Amino acid sequence: MAKVAEPIAPVIAVDRKASDPLHKQVYDGFRMVIVRGNLRPGQRVPSSRSLAVELGISRIPVLNAYAQLLAEGYFESRKGAGTFVSDSLPESLTVCKERTPQSAQVGSGPRPVARRGLLMTAERPPWARGFGAFGVHQPAFEHFPFQIWSSIVARHTRSPRLSAIHNIDALGTETFREAICTYLRTARAVHCEPNQVMIVAGSQQALEISARVLLGRGSSIWVEDPGYRLARNVFAGAGCNLIPVPIDEDGMIVSAGIKRCPKARAAYVTPSHQYPLGATMSAGRRMQLLNWAQSAGSWIIEDDYDSEYRFKSAPISSLQGLDRNARVIYIGTFSKVLFPSLRLGYIVIPEDLVGHFAAVRSAMDIFPPYLYQETITDFMREGHFARHIRKMRLLYGQRRTALVNSIRDQLGPELEIHGSQAGMHLAVTLPKGLSDQEIAARAAAKGLWLWPLSPSYLGKHTRQGLILGFGNTPVEEMPRAVSQLREHLR
Amino acid sequence: MAKVAEPIAPVIAVDRKASDPLHKQVYDGFRMVIVRGNLRPGQRVPSSRSLAVELGISRIPVLNAYAQLLAEGYFESRKGAGTFVSDSLPESLTVCKERTPQSAQVGSGPRPVARRGLLMTAERPPWARGFGAFGVHQPAFEHFPFQIWSSIVARHTRSPRLSAIHNIDALGTETFREAICTYLRTARAVHCEPNQVMIVAGSQQALEISARVLLGRGSSIWVEDPGYRLARNVFAGAGCNLIPVPIDEDGMIVSAGIKRCPKARAAYVTPSHQYPLGATMSAGRRMQLLNWAQSAGSWIIEDDYDSEYRFKSAPISSLQGLDRNARVIYIGTFSKVLFPSLRLGYIVIPEDLVGHFAAVRSAMDIFPPYLYQETITDFMREGHFARHIRKMRLLYGQRRTALVNSIRDQLGPELEIHGSQAGMHLAVTLPKGLSDQEIAARAAAKGLWLWPLSPSYLGKHTRQGLILGFGNTPVEEMPRAVSQLREHLR
Repeated sequence: MAKVAEPIAPVIAVDRKASDPLHKQVYDGFRMVIVRGNLRPGQRVPSSRSLAVELGISRIPVLNAYAQLLAEGYFESRKGAGTFVSDSLPESLTVCKERTPQSAQVGSGPRPVARRGLLMTAERPPWARGFGAFGVHQPAFEHFPFQIWSSIVARHTRSPRLSAIHNIDALGTETFREAICTYLRTARAVHCEPNQVMIVAGSQQALEISARVLLGRGSSIWVEDPGYRLARNVFAGAGCNLIPVPIDEDGMIVSAGIKRCPKARAAYVTPSHQYPLGATMSAGRRMQLLNWAQSAGSWIIEDDYDSEYRFKSAPISSLQGLDRNARVIYIGTFSKVLFPSLRLGYIVIPEDLVGHFAAVRSAMDIFPPYLYQETITDFMREGHFARHIRKMRLLYGQRRTALVNSIRDQLGPELEIHGSQAGMHLAVTLPKGLSDQEIAARAAAKGLWLWPLSPSYLGKHTRQGLILGFGNTPVEEMPRAVSQLREHLR
Repeated sequence: MAKVAEPIAPVIAVDRKASDPLHKQVYDGFRMVIVRGNLRPGQRVPSSRSLAVELGISRIPVLNAYAQLLAEGYFESRKGAGTFVSDSLPESLTVCKERTPQSAQVGSGPRPVARRGLLMTAERPPWARGFGAFGVHQPAFEHFPFQIWSSIVARHTRSPRLSAIHNIDALGTETFREAICTYLRTARAVHCEPNQVMIVAGSQQALEISARVLLGRGSSIWVEDPGYRLARNVFAGAGCNLIPVPIDEDGMIVSAGIKRCPKARAAYVTPSHQYPLGATMSAGRRMQLLNWAQSAGSWIIEDDYDSEYRFKSAPISSLQGLDRNARVIYIGTFSKVLFPSLRLGYIVIPEDLVGHFAAVRSAMDIFPPYLYQETITDFMREGHFARHIRKMRLLYGQRRTALVNSIRDQLGPELEIHGSQAGMHLAVTLPKGLSDQEIAARAAAKGLWLWPLSPSYLGKHTRQGLILGFGNTPVEEMPRAVSQLREHLR
């Protein structure tokens, strides 16, 4: 491995039948790719021997061309390292107008885009950019068992199972779906068999696929208000009619939904820990919702994004586990319990819909990547997953308590705290007259990441508040973080 | 790590205020989760100590409940290993009707599905299931440098860059986009800067996102006929009007497309190595296509799926590199050059469309997973990528020659060979009277994976033939594989 690898050869056309001699063609070819910016200053070029093989010509014309390119300063030779495009090309070459033909011409002629494509914006507000105290959905990376994890990853990278790397099942690998089933049946009382489980790239893709299968243009869907914006994006992108349904401390007010739109095609809910206000849906409301779905012939999309972490009460059953009519599409993610950049989640699909979900997924990205499926299967089977959840539940419980205490100490009467019984975030509502988005933008400029509450509302009755993640802030740093927060509220 | 990890606790509700004593509640809770199938025979249950902590009660009632469950045969104790749900539960329990409420009730009441969801089928024909000789899109896994690869993976798993695992950019990591740019500018003469590159889950997702941004219901799109079925699935799923355009040995016959639908919103092409017949689009046709796109205000989707491997001619420039009007969306994949279950590809997007692509991708699955982005960046920078391509080009060239020779030797006049100058597959057309789908189905039953050509056609002028992958069959095994093929043609 000591030898430096030959770089990729640039696209240079040589034609033995052309009138120009070969060395001139090679010289012109290099000049062209340099002038156009396809080869950049400082980039290594192939050895003359390797290029000659690549072009299927003898080495002599290549050597001649290289000599000329060196003499004229296009190339430079670095001892023992090879030949490079000169770092100091004359500016007239590198800013040549030919170099960026695209940007120069963009805009000429009609450039039509689909209406669906325009429904969404890539807007990324200032508070969504950072990493640190109060960042929402940020787990305690420093407590993740990267050593154990990487040893499992290594096992499946060094000598992968052929059946895993060749697995092209739209649902994912069988072993991983089995492991997820065992976990969900036990910890979430979900009713499922492996053939109902689909592995997806996080809960966002789960929502996207569910929307494709179940919802058409103009379908009505109940959404919690306030609710999870990225879910609303999916439904809006599918052309759905979003029906905001208010929530209270028992979760979605089902009767209000029935009043507003009794025949909605679906309801999207976060019953374990409502996002963002954190209520747990009561047993009565759960039965009401399930009964409505069965009588209206509707679907329920249950997003169980952070149910692993409950701090005071015993674990509760999923809505799916209470359903007797296979009306619930259950969605979970590894983003919170492991980490988000895995991009891995799952859907538990009613049996009669599995074929539809698989077809839509196949057209979307065919099947999920193999490595993390294998890794998490072992991580679960070997007990690391259960151990990690237990450890994190304790840790997040402490961080949660520290945050609640710091808020009470420093901001006592001003802020009302919501939904701190579970998960990795809580919400606070602000005194009258304060704008959460202004506060969040100001704080972001100082490196404090506060998510405003008001954009979570779809209807008119908007409250001003902040969504505060506590997963990523050690207990001992919490008082200081809260005092920074306090400064931005003044 | 010697200690066996505690399993996840099942969902058991205890209520101190209930009239039933706690030990009875725990006993009933376990009975219920076992009867319902949430805990399965042979599954380990938490230790009494750990469950007591989990439920927030003292250990005594848990011990009493466990003793009763053991006595009645629901649990069994295995020395040194813990307590388990009995392997030999009475059948009356495990096949209880309560256990699978979903399947029991599926079908009751209306179960509406979106029309879009019905447009696609999860059909998986017999020839798509196997792994071995002639399997299409199957690289030579045994020649992949898993040792080098896994050492790079390990580096990024054991101590990941925080900025990489926290990267939530819809385009992907900056470093990876830079590495891809350098490669594409050099090897494919693509005009690009990192801010135009989006990392996606394979070329299928690239097509899906492109369709979302550019095409609406009823938009017309030219597709090659015969062509790539999975691409057609995407456009059909988007509600597009597919215009089949015939191909010849110079690629898509642009004039035929102009005749049939001069104002199509887009054209989907595989100019480097037409799928499935393997033609390389000629320079004249390329200019014709680019000129049409500019004058019609249309887009070109260039799918450059296996351009790394050309066996006789010099590398050719991408269509995107010839475009002066930013009308080309360029799509590439690592599925062929590395392996498919990575699920990784990229799009080079015209600058003015980057925001739209990012918005659609965000709603679809937010951002790509971090690990392979980091891994391939290093794999490229350290020269392994270029070396692997060179090595595979030689290997596939030999396998291709062996296949062509074996076909000529054994099946000489019967089969016409198409498109063997590049890539990892070639096509043969069959003598009159043979049905490619029948042959493929029969061969699949015997473990030989032949893809029929005729389903690649959209229009009426269908030819019978076979698409033969040669990436995965060693030279010395080729004659035997071809003689197997011959048997199925008799």
